[in-house]
Amino acid sequence: MTEATSAESLLGAHLAAQAGLFLRTLPDVRQGNLRRVGGALHTFGELLDADWARQLAADLATLSEVLGAEQAHGRRLVRLLASIDSLTSAEAAVPGPRAEGGTGREAVGLLAGHPGAPKARALMERQVSLARSRAHSARLQELGSARFHALADRMTLLASDLPLRDRSGDRQPAEALLPAVRATLQELAESVAELPLERAATPYNRDALHRLGGTVTPESTESDDLPWRQVHTRVLRARYAVEAVQPLLGAAAERPLELLRGYGDLLERQAEAAAAAEAAAGAARTPRITPATAYVLGVVHADQRLEVEAARHAFGVSWPDLAHSGWLTDPWLARSN
Amino acid sequence: MTEATSAESLLGAHLAAQAGLFLRTLPDVRQGNLRRVGGALHTFGELLDADWARQLAADLATLSEVLGAEQAHGRRLVRLLASIDSLTSAEAAVPGPRAEGGTGREAVGLLAGHPGAPKARALMERQVSLARSRAHSARLQELGSARFHALADRMTLLASDLPLRDRSGDRQPAEALLPAVRATLQELAESVAELPLERAATPYNRDALHRLGGTVTPESTESDDLPWRQVHTRVLRARYAVEAVQPLLGAAAERPLELLRGYGDLLERQAEAAAAAEAAAGAARTPRITPATAYVLGVVHADQRLEVEAARHAFGVSWPDLAHSGWLTDPWLARSN
Repeated sequence: MTEATSAESLLGAHLAAQAGLFLRTLPDVRQGNLRRVGGALHTFGELLDADWARQLAADLATLSEVLGAEQAHGRRLVRLLASIDSLTSAEAAVPGPRAEGGTGREAVGLLAGHPGAPKARALMERQVSLARSRAHSARLQELGSARFHALADRMTLLASDLPLRDRSGDRQPAEALLPAVRATLQELAESVAELPLERAATPYNRDALHRLGGTVTPESTESDDLPWRQVHTRVLRARYAVEAVQPLLGAAAERPLELLRGYGDLLERQAEAAAAAEAAAGAARTPRITPATAYVLGVVHADQRLEVEAARHAFGVSWPDLAHSGWLTDPWLARSN
Repeated sequence: MTEATSAESLLGAHLAAQAGLFLRTLPDVRQGNLRRVGGALHTFGELLDADWARQLAADLATLSEVLGAEQAHGRRLVRLLASIDSLTSAEAAVPGPRAEGGTGREAVGLLAGHPGAPKARALMERQVSLARSRAHSARLQELGSARFHALADRMTLLASDLPLRDRSGDRQPAEALLPAVRATLQELAESVAELPLERAATPYNRDALHRLGGTVTPESTESDDLPWRQVHTRVLRARYAVEAVQPLLGAAAERPLELLRGYGDLLERQAEAAAAAEAAAGAARTPRITPATAYVLGVVHADQRLEVEAARHAFGVSWPDLAHSGWLTDPWLARSN
């Protein structure tokens, strides 16, 4: 599947492809593109000039955050407006199929006809749009900065002249790369072991509203999102690591990749819902809003935390598919040897 | 298990026992006691003077509502205060067992430290306590009324001189009573078939906040509780019908009774949570409350609707235990013949 004959040339080809994509799509930088490069630098750093790889990975992470913020706020806005529109919906639903035991019924949101809904909607829209506009300006500024141009130069270097630790590298690809992939999977398993996963797998566990962990601050009580964020980072890293060595693994990589993509989607959903919940809570701290507006924002806040609980539940239920598959613990990665 | 030799004497003994309990415990009237008498009159009405049975059942239902309201408000108050206290809790939890993957973590509610919590708590406490006080007065007034004394007289009659349709009744108990019990189970199954049960059995189905059925009114959008209320009524009726003929069934009645009791508990929980949710929404319509208070009430409202969804989920998951047991469709009730 590849012409690479050494670990170095396989890694080089992977990074060159990603760097090429980065340069071709400028100035539309894609999150996945940045993350794939950063992930490879992190996972396969042992083959590369260590300081260079660490610095580039850090700069890519910063860039990813700056450039990704506009889209993140855009998705948050869509999510919050969808939540409030659904909560206030009073439209007749399509009658359910008899198989579901449904007689035709109306789909009515908890806040249908609530007098606070229009103002709450407008307030969230204004605040998140403002944050998105600021992120837009920051993105444009970043794209015109000397820092960004220096980074683009380094990406060019990545494509043409990768700073390898061992320039005469001729190690077997499987021998040199697969243990690093295995390590990312093991780190992922260790992070997941820190989660309250059994409870997450129990539906309606009250974690969404009643049992957030972490420390209370005046701004937020939701810092138990941190361990979940770490698992999210590591799921992405594991996914990109397996993708990078897919030429070595062929079809054996398909099922684990499918699972890792699914976990990534679930964890992104819970992260976005958690951020949306904080945005709703923040909007409710706006001075001089009406009680009706605040009430609606309270329901939206709870609704988004419920989304967090639902996504974590889905993760808790589906994690055993990977955990019990042997892909985390065992020499499946060596099969291709 | 009983000396009854005819259907009429078995029913008479059952009603006499319940009427005796009613008279002995006056003026502390128990809901279950009233419901058992009403249920027997409804289920086995064919053996009784029809007009008399219908009228007494209706009067018992009214009495049950008037006398039960005080306790219902008391339970609602306990539920709402428990909800807000848990939502605002910021206490360190006991570290979870390692088996749950828990490092010691804090149990922090979504509203921990929220400035609106104390006023929202006081407001709900005041409003529900006021409703409970009114229900208390209504109960005392009812207990002193001519209507109540007339009803107590009829209960005395029930114990001593049951108005049977056929006074020389000597029908076989199983033949005369069990078909009526089977009919209550079938009516229950028909009501359950009207519920969106497959969806309820899917966790996090968004029904709690996004897909209430029924019609929107300025006061409430929660009228999809109605079909669930009907199932609740019929679960109780089925339970009391099986209890009434337990002398005929012996051990065969134990498992269905256990299931029916469990369903009754779940449906009571969802009914109480739905009523508590409406109370929180009502409190939020109080004029001149602060936005912080309203926000907290919005979260409490959502929390109680989530309880409704969770209880319905539990019912949806456990209903097949009865539905697939054969107890609803099949001649198990004839086995004792």
